[in-house]
Formats: sequence, structure tokens, C-alpha cells
Amino acid sequence: MSTQNKELMLRLQTLFEPKSIAMIGASNNPAKWGFRILSNIVGGGFQGRVYPVNINPDSPEIMRLKVLIRMADLPEVPDIAVIVVPPPAVPQVMRDCATKGVKVAVVITAGFAEVGSGGERLQQEISDIARGAGMRFVGPNSFGILNPHHKLYSQMPPLFPPPGPFGVISQSGNIIGTIARLLIERAYGCSKCVSIGNQADLCAEDYLEFFSQDTQIKVILCYMEGFKDGTRFLNLAKETSKKKPIILLKAGETPAGARAAKSHTASLAGSDAILDAMCRQAGVVRVRILDELVDTGIAFLRQPLPRGRRVGIVTAGGGWGVLVADACARLGLDVVTLPPEIIDELDSFMPAWWNRGNPVDLVAGGGGDTILRAIEILMRCPVVDGVIMLGLMPILGPAQMDRAFSDLQTGRDVVREEMVEATGVLFDQLNNLSDHYNKPLIVASEPMAFGSQFARKIAHAIADRNTICYEMPHQAAAVFARLAQYSEYQNQEQ
Amino acid sequence: MSTQNKELMLRLQTLFEPKSIAMIGASNNPAKWGFRILSNIVGGGFQGRVYPVNINPDSPEIMRLKVLIRMADLPEVPDIAVIVVPPPAVPQVMRDCATKGVKVAVVITAGFAEVGSGGERLQQEISDIARGAGMRFVGPNSFGILNPHHKLYSQMPPLFPPPGPFGVISQSGNIIGTIARLLIERAYGCSKCVSIGNQADLCAEDYLEFFSQDTQIKVILCYMEGFKDGTRFLNLAKETSKKKPIILLKAGETPAGARAAKSHTASLAGSDAILDAMCRQAGVVRVRILDELVDTGIAFLRQPLPRGRRVGIVTAGGGWGVLVADACARLGLDVVTLPPEIIDELDSFMPAWWNRGNPVDLVAGGGGDTILRAIEILMRCPVVDGVIMLGLMPILGPAQMDRAFSDLQTGRDVVREEMVEATGVLFDQLNNLSDHYNKPLIVASEPMAFGSQFARKIAHAIADRNTICYEMPHQAAAVFARLAQYSEYQNQEQ
Repeated sequence: MSTQNKELMLRLQTLFEPKSIAMIGASNNPAKWGFRILSNIVGGGFQGRVYPVNINPDSPEIMRLKVLIRMADLPEVPDIAVIVVPPPAVPQVMRDCATKGVKVAVVITAGFAEVGSGGERLQQEISDIARGAGMRFVGPNSFGILNPHHKLYSQMPPLFPPPGPFGVISQSGNIIGTIARLLIERAYGCSKCVSIGNQADLCAEDYLEFFSQDTQIKVILCYMEGFKDGTRFLNLAKETSKKKPIILLKAGETPAGARAAKSHTASLAGSDAILDAMCRQAGVVRVRILDELVDTGIAFLRQPLPRGRRVGIVTAGGGWGVLVADACARLGLDVVTLPPEIIDELDSFMPAWWNRGNPVDLVAGGGGDTILRAIEILMRCPVVDGVIMLGLMPILGPAQMDRAFSDLQTGRDVVREEMVEATGVLFDQLNNLSDHYNKPLIVASEPMAFGSQFARKIAHAIADRNTICYEMPHQAAAVFARLAQYSEYQNQEQ
Repeated sequence: MSTQNKELMLRLQTLFEPKSIAMIGASNNPAKWGFRILSNIVGGGFQGRVYPVNINPDSPEIMRLKVLIRMADLPEVPDIAVIVVPPPAVPQVMRDCATKGVKVAVVITAGFAEVGSGGERLQQEISDIARGAGMRFVGPNSFGILNPHHKLYSQMPPLFPPPGPFGVISQSGNIIGTIARLLIERAYGCSKCVSIGNQADLCAEDYLEFFSQDTQIKVILCYMEGFKDGTRFLNLAKETSKKKPIILLKAGETPAGARAAKSHTASLAGSDAILDAMCRQAGVVRVRILDELVDTGIAFLRQPLPRGRRVGIVTAGGGWGVLVADACARLGLDVVTLPPEIIDELDSFMPAWWNRGNPVDLVAGGGGDTILRAIEILMRCPVVDGVIMLGLMPILGPAQMDRAFSDLQTGRDVVREEMVEATGVLFDQLNNLSDHYNKPLIVASEPMAFGSQFARKIAHAIADRNTICYEMPHQAAAVFARLAQYSEYQNQEQ
């Protein structure tokens, strides 16, 4: 690694693991961003020192912290400075930070290159100040950064995901918020997250390089509108993808989207087809829909990669089976014809009226043992590269199912703890099968509880096992296809 | 209407509004379907007479109802018979029903044409019996029927949606369950629902004709794997679509899906391209993903149809705006360039750094008034045919937003009643705008509360106003495109 590169990695480490933060533009008014970001830093439990700074403070103290008028008043050089002052005030604040010796700044303020030529000049000005002083910065037009491992929640939305295996690079702060919310709903957490904004200095490629080396990060989730250095991104992604998956949602693909991206983060979107080819070359897993970013990421945490595209399907309901077969076929997966000996083996215990084909349709005729036996037979089958299983209810038992549904009807938490426990035991069994046969086993099902504390507990029981139960059948097919695509990349690279 | 046709409509009315039900194959064992369906009929509050029948009962009474051994023992001719006996016993039961004078039967039992030639013969046998006696029947291989207006829940899954505006025709029982669950989650209900099974006698076209005339049904949701009489379906759909929308999810479109459909409901899927052309001709709104069936259906309840494909977008977050612009462009919608006078009008009150384009991006810079003013200006703009609005939080206020998020974090219900009320008031305002300008106004937003009773209350506050807030940005674009497509059909038919 070059000296320059080492220096960059050290700076990014300081950014994500600061011991002290100057929060410039701090306010005691809850409607102001300067209040809300400070509130998230303090409320998130940051363990280092926090210095609110405001040249014209609306209160001498905010959240029991003394407000300082000037950067010069700080008793130490803060590791990072978070800047939330109006656009015209940013250059002077940047100069003050540079003078103080701040190593990295996070410029939250918007109104730079994304608003046209006036903003572009202002952005150039702050870039020049930083470069002259050897100071690096995130943004401008960033929603901030998160590192739950470090109890660092220096961002706009009041979302506090726990520590977890995902690194998130997002060109939209609003979408960092959505990703954090989706993770929390699924009982997952994240590692470093950064809203990269206009990338006037630090850019997606820098964060990708850092995340690539970060052992806490197992999967990288990326929302991009435009690349600052596409070739560098490609080369980095190529190396990173050998170690850990990058899931990319690239927006601004259409002329209308590209115009919106230009005015959002001053991004120039490239050709979609070129990007697609690039992603294939670099092993980047591309998604097109926002929640797929998170839902695909989770699948990569523990599922073994399939050796090919041949899918076995076990379904507790016929319609879901047909929809998944359709979805698989559309995504280039092979809903493989089962060999006669496999059909015979299934025949020995399946209900008489079973369909003798793939999907293996239980027509509500099998209990838990039947389903698990059917899954194991498909997992063992040499022409099957992985299994999609649809419908948890027959496995978890009709009594629990009735309770789960009644929970939905009555709004009361009548699902018992036994259901949460049974869910955990089941996912252990599924994980064991998946490990034993070294093949992915993807599950989609009606949820087992609805809008209740038990729904949270069930989500946790599943997430604690590093896996997920998709709510819609097509999602399972989409995820299988992406595992297959990534597997193909890894094989070709070996 | 022909006499034959009138007769069919009367029979279907009897099916969905019976005064008495014979439940044949009734059981006192909760693991058996004969228990569970009876339990749903009784538990759902059916107001008529219910007669459990079993030739070899496992209990003299079930749910306090005396079990009868033979159909002949019934003190009256029941309006409908629900049949859940093993396949070989079905023909004799059908004969007994015919002898008793039953007008319509619902054959839940599976194991007929969908399992091959043996089952086909059995299916032919029961069809012959019914036809000989002038008895009509649903199924076989049906999950049952629902009519919440009539407190009729004669179906497998223990789901009790309230009365509502949707008629549901599904070739999969499992998917009737998913649709009912999705409706309940969104605080909606349904009118008649039927799981049509193998359509040995009564078929999708019959139900469609009945639903077309049923004034309680405002929107028809349809999951199909194959049509019994495609031409009749097309002609009926053409007429029905002039009055009310039909949303169709057609499965079995791929070879793998078609094979699965054959073994699921003995359906022969036709060519996908031909079906697509048929749908266009008949004004049928086609979706490809299961939850879209419900989410699209809700949009048709109260939104005015757009006069064209020109969309205005107001967004509280840049990333969501870019994703929606992309989604619109992919679906053939025009993210229209706003005229200079509209830009000037917006300029007079928008934050200085706003992007002066479409999407109108508030960059978290506007409160509720700013957003509502921006929406109204776009609604009024003559080159805009409808508006997509993204992000409710700035409108509902940061204090509520903090509470909503904290609800998610802590799992405690800290969102106050004021939030539920504010949501109701806001959707009234949006509905008023939509009515006043006679243009659709589609909303997508992060949810306002998570996994709590307040989430239910907020869902109700929105559903009570016949509208919906989508959780993902692309959904808003998809729904707008379908409203536009249906509008084009209606204009061309006028």
C-alpha cells in the first residue's frame, strides 16, 4: 500500500472512530439540524468528547454541554468536525477547522454543486481550503456518518441501528435512513455507514477501499447516483468482490432519473448498459429496487453459494410455488426436473395426491416432518444446487398458525413464546441442512406474527441466526439468482 | 340477460349469501381441515344454520353443534354444502347432496385433475353427477369462499378480513390467504372472495360475471393460472372494465411456471404475449408481483384517473426522488419539465437551495406548509396529470418523526394519538386536493410507526380515507402507470 493510501486509510479510521467531535452550528432549537444531529450524537451514547460550537449560540449550554463560540476555544484538537452552518458560512468554518488542525470534517450543509454554478464555486472554495490545509472532508450535502460499533450516530435521522455486519455507502442521506430503518425492522444492524453527498473530496471509491479492508464489514451495500472515478471503483470492486460481496443500487439510470440525480448530488450518471457490463466484470451484485438492497445483502451473510443455477422448490402452497417457478425462470434459474429416484423417495412418505414434480407441492398435506424430509432429499439431490422453501406454517404447526393469525385479527399479542422458540429451532435446523450439504436454502413465507412485539421477537429469532424469511415469493427467487451470479464470478476468478 | 344466465347469477348469490350450510367431513380434531373450516364458519359469526355432517363422526357434537350422519338427516335443504372428505368419498357425497336438493357445493378436497389421469377420471365423475342433478359446484381443490358482508368465512386459513370493496377470484387458495392477510395489514377488507380450484364446473368467468354486477364490489382482484374459456373472460372483462377495474396477476407465464400450474390446478397456461395483448384490449390491469395485486387495487378506490402520463413529483428526500424518476421513466411516464412560471411560483417560498426542477426536492428544507403548497402548485399546473409525493415526515413534523423512530428503537408505543390524528387530517387534505383538481395524488413514505398498535391505528387512519401510503418509492410510480393505462382504456372506449 502506498504512503498516500495508508494516510487515507488512517484518516478514514479517524473519521469512523473519533475520540472527539466538534459540532459546528449546534443549536438548542429542536427544529434545527444543529440540534438534531447533536441530539443523535449524544443520545446515541458516543463515548468521546463532544464540543458544540456556534458563533452566535441560542443557548449557553445544549444538552448540558457548554457551547463554544470559536474553534480556537476548544481545549483540544477534535478528531472530526461536523459542520451544519448555512452555506455562505461554510468556507470560514472550514478555515477555522484547518487552523485548529482538524483532520476530517463532515459537511452536512447543502446548497453547493447540486444547486448550480453559484454552489459549484462555493464547493470549489471549500475544496481548495481543505486541500491547502491537508484536511479531508465528507460531503458537502451529506446526512452524516454512523458507526454503531463505536456508538457514533452523527447523522440526521434519529435512527440507531445496533452494530452489525453491513457497510453502507450512500449518495443519498434520505436513503441511508431507509436502509437503517429496513435493517432495524429485520432485526439487523450495521457497521460503518456514510452519506457521501457531493463527494467534493472523499468519494465512494475511498470509502469502498476502507470498507474492503474492514474486517467488521461482511457485506457492502451501496446506493450510487454517479461515480467520481469509475475506473478506480471498478478496480477496487473487482478486488473487494473476491473477499466480500458488494450489492449496488445505481440510480439515475434513465434520462429523468439522471436529471434528478444531477440536481440531487450533482452526479453525472453514465450509460446503464456500460455500468451493467462493469458490474459483471467486477462481481458487483446489482439490484434495482430499494428494499432489495438490504434483503439481498442479508442473504449473503451465511448462505453457501450455489454451484449452479438448478433450483429445487418445496412449497406449502401451490400458488406460491407457481409464482416462484415463474420468477426463477425469468431470472435464468433452472427449476430442474427431479430424477425418478428422487420422485420415488418423496413418494414413499408424501401425501398420496402430491404432484410428483418440482416445485414439490405439499398441498397443505404435510406437517413439519414431511416438509423437512422433502427439503433434505432435495438438498442431497446431485442435480439441485440449492433449495427454495415456501411457507413456514405447516412446519410450525397449525396451533401456532391459528395464534399468529388471531394476533393479526385481534391486535393482541396472543402468539406465545413457544412460537418464537419454535422459529429459532426451525431456522437452526435449516441452517444445519444448508451447512451440511453446502448449498443455499432460501425461505419465503407469510409472516408468523403481525404488528406486535412477537413479530419483533420472531424477527430477532431469525436474524440471530444470520438469516431471513422473505415475505413475498418472488424475493426468494431474486436472491437465489444473485447468489448464483456471485458464485459464477468467484469461480471465474479462481 | 338469458334465462340460463339469470339462473347462474341466482346460484352464485346463494353461494355467497347462504342461509344454511352443510359442512360434510366435519371433525372435532383441530389438525383436520374438517375442523378448521367449521371453526372458521362458526368463529366468523355466520348468522345462518350450520350442519356438521360425517358418516363416521369422531364426536357426537362439534362446537356445540350436533353432528349428523347422513345428508338425509338434515331438517332442511341446506343452501350450500362444503365438502372436505377424502377424494374417493367425494362422488357419493355429491350424489347425497344432489338427492337432498343442494343447489351449490364447495368441494375443498384436492386430488383431482391436478394429480393426473386417475384424478381426472374422478373429477369427471363428480362433474357428471352434478350436471345430471342440476347442481353447481366450486372446485374441487378449492380453499373455500368468503363474504364478510354476510359473515361467511367458509375457508381454510383462519383469516377474517372485514367487509370491504374488493372482490377476489383466485385459482390458488394459498394466495387467497396472502391477499386476505395483505388487506388486513393495510386495514382494508373485502367483499366476495373465491378460491376457484380446478374449475370443474363453476369457473373464473362465472365469478367475474357475478362480481361485475355486484355493487358492493368496486375493484376486482384476480390471480389466475389458466383460463377455462379465454374468449368469454376477454369479453366479460371488456364490459366489466368500463365499470370497474380488474387487476390481474397471471401466473404460469414461463415454461417452469406453466408446469407448476399444471400440477397445481390442472391449468394450461397460454402464451404470455397473447394474454398481454388481450389484457390491453380488455382494459385489464396486469401486475406481475403478488403484493402489487393488492397495492394496485387500493389505488383504484378513490384516485381520479390521470388524463395523461405527465407526472409531477414532490419529494422530501433526494434519493427517493431519483428512484421514482427512474421508475417513472422505465414505465413510460413523463417526469415533465415544469414551465418557468411554475418554477417562479415555487421559487417564491421554497428554501434558497431548492433544485428548481422536477422532482421538486425539498432537501429536508421545507415544513408541512411548504410541501403542501408545492403539491398544490403542481396539481394546478396544466402540464401535470398527477402528482407523486414522497415522504410524510416533514409534513407531520419533526417531533412526531422522532417519536415514530423512537417507537421503532424501543419497541414501546410512544407515538401519541396526535400522530394518528395528524395523519388523518393530512390525508383528508391530500384527498381534497386530489378531488379539487381531479388528478391522482399518490403518496409513498417511510412508515410513521413500526410494529406497534400505533402502526395499526395509522394504517386505519389512512385506509378510512380509501387511500394508502406506499412504503417504497417505486411502488408509487408503478401505481401511477397503471392508473394511466386504465385511463387510456376508458378514454378509448368512450
